[in-house]
Amino acid sequence: MSQSSLDVVGIGNAIVDIVSQCDDRFLADNGLDKGAMTLVGAHAALALYDKCGPGIESSGGSAANTMAGIASLGGRAAYIGKVRDDELGRVFRHDIRASGVRYDAIPAAAGPPTARCLVLVTPDAQRTMQTCLGISAELTAADVDLEMVRAAKVTYLEGYLFDPPAAKEAFRTAARAARAAGRLVALTLSDPFCVDRHRKDFLDLIAGPVDILFANEAEILSLYRTDRFEDALTAVRGHCEIAALTRSAKGAVVLSGEAMHVVEAAPAGRVVDTTGAGDLFAAGFLYGLTHGLGPAAAGRIGAIAAAEVIGHLGARPAQPLDRLVQGLSA
Amino acid sequence: MSQSSLDVVGIGNAIVDIVSQCDDRFLADNGLDKGAMTLVGAHAALALYDKCGPGIESSGGSAANTMAGIASLGGRAAYIGKVRDDELGRVFRHDIRASGVRYDAIPAAAGPPTARCLVLVTPDAQRTMQTCLGISAELTAADVDLEMVRAAKVTYLEGYLFDPPAAKEAFRTAARAARAAGRLVALTLSDPFCVDRHRKDFLDLIAGPVDILFANEAEILSLYRTDRFEDALTAVRGHCEIAALTRSAKGAVVLSGEAMHVVEAAPAGRVVDTTGAGDLFAAGFLYGLTHGLGPAAAGRIGAIAAAEVIGHLGARPAQPLDRLVQGLSA
Repeated sequence: MSQSSLDVVGIGNAIVDIVSQCDDRFLADNGLDKGAMTLVGAHAALALYDKCGPGIESSGGSAANTMAGIASLGGRAAYIGKVRDDELGRVFRHDIRASGVRYDAIPAAAGPPTARCLVLVTPDAQRTMQTCLGISAELTAADVDLEMVRAAKVTYLEGYLFDPPAAKEAFRTAARAARAAGRLVALTLSDPFCVDRHRKDFLDLIAGPVDILFANEAEILSLYRTDRFEDALTAVRGHCEIAALTRSAKGAVVLSGEAMHVVEAAPAGRVVDTTGAGDLFAAGFLYGLTHGLGPAAAGRIGAIAAAEVIGHLGARPAQPLDRLVQGLSA
Repeated sequence: MSQSSLDVVGIGNAIVDIVSQCDDRFLADNGLDKGAMTLVGAHAALALYDKCGPGIESSGGSAANTMAGIASLGGRAAYIGKVRDDELGRVFRHDIRASGVRYDAIPAAAGPPTARCLVLVTPDAQRTMQTCLGISAELTAADVDLEMVRAAKVTYLEGYLFDPPAAKEAFRTAARAARAAGRLVALTLSDPFCVDRHRKDFLDLIAGPVDILFANEAEILSLYRTDRFEDALTAVRGHCEIAALTRSAKGAVVLSGEAMHVVEAAPAGRVVDTTGAGDLFAAGFLYGLTHGLGPAAAGRIGAIAAAEVIGHLGARPAQPLDRLVQGLSA
């Protein structure tokens, strides 16, 4: 195995978030599934945008948030995902590069606009997302920079990639290249409804190339069609080297071979917006793993990164994470 | 005087803010005037954007922020300002309408892009702004909806309008129409450097059609070329009916005819970003005045609105202001 010049490369849907506050009634009136990510067309997205309150735009995308978190912790991260050369595409590209993440893709000169996600945050800090995939859905295997994948200790793939059809092949190409180079493959399940749409594919990947699995409680329950977390733990054990399962305020459970580590949630102040909590847990965990920490210590870094991002609107860190974890790995 | 269907109509440069955190060294390295608003061309704006950290995009523009604040307090506000039919123009238009402000302008199908302002926030919560005026600089007298001006108790004009040459005429047209309809004219000085660029014009306006003047300490000192606040108070007295002069943590001084009212700053939690503090003070003050309050009580509402906006990133209220001032006017 050649020396790695990157810790993690993430592949995902490159999205700009439009964060807007609303109440539960707004969700009900518009028939929205609270807490879920729903794919919508451009027309429906615009109609809903017209109805919602003032917004704040910031770069998002699950794997992109995770890479920004790794860079903020001081790790070497890169990102693969597709944007147009429009205003939101320029915002996405600026932000991820300004976060210290390597992002070499040239914005496309033609095609649908840059993906956007309307993130509706209710007073309980829960987020409900409506995503218009735009050009991010046109990611293909040809967009995967194989040199980058081979250079990274971990290739991190978001489950959302299974929604746009061509991206599945990009996903598999990246996973094969990573394995062939002796690297690790990580997968996050992204969303319980996404799991429901692609259950068979995910089960095959977990039985196959995936070394590290990330999921929250709803996702892992959906994957194994159970309503008991213990049953899901039993089901996933042995299928991948590490499974890091997050449970919101209850912290996380990390399975590593035969061992099970319970990681407490880090103290958070007022919880404002849970968007990005899972993405930032993955950031901290992968940063820890690629810096010589064991699963429990890596989980603690994940918990601290997640606690930071839920304290403010937006899915990426608002302050440098390296300062928050100083001394922790010593 | 016919019955008013609006409390305040604001006219200004319609701008989307890109808020990014930086340190003092970044300002020094890039030769930026801390605390000031500087006009820049598209090329310089892009070069600086490339260098700065990740951003958050949200609607801004001084008078637009003020109108959003008035609407959030429950007042009837309208706005006049120019955007393109580009992505940021759609963001601006959506946000101001979603805030409850009447905004009827059709985005322009041609011309420069929607104005943007890079707002650099330092750890001391001070903001330094680089504005690329884009199409907002093409506001002309023809864009002023005279029916709207006549229908509003107050026409509120931002001093920044004196930077784009054609907007001066729009400004004067609006002031004349307001006066002719027996309405009040309010002016905010916007920025000490803006005052320096247009001192003679501002002095003429204050001696002429302006009834209510807003300025912060630096601006009023710049206007009268003095470094003593007391001298500025003496100079402005008698030139307009009301002068509301804000002094950051020291609160505000409101001159009204022969009377002088000292308004204390409202208690704020952690001060995160002072962008919009003056705009929101004006919002609270104008809301109070147009709802039958005297200058001191109106100033208290201004102080509360300003305290809300400095507690978070961005120049518009993050929570409904009407709840914060409930019972205050009773």
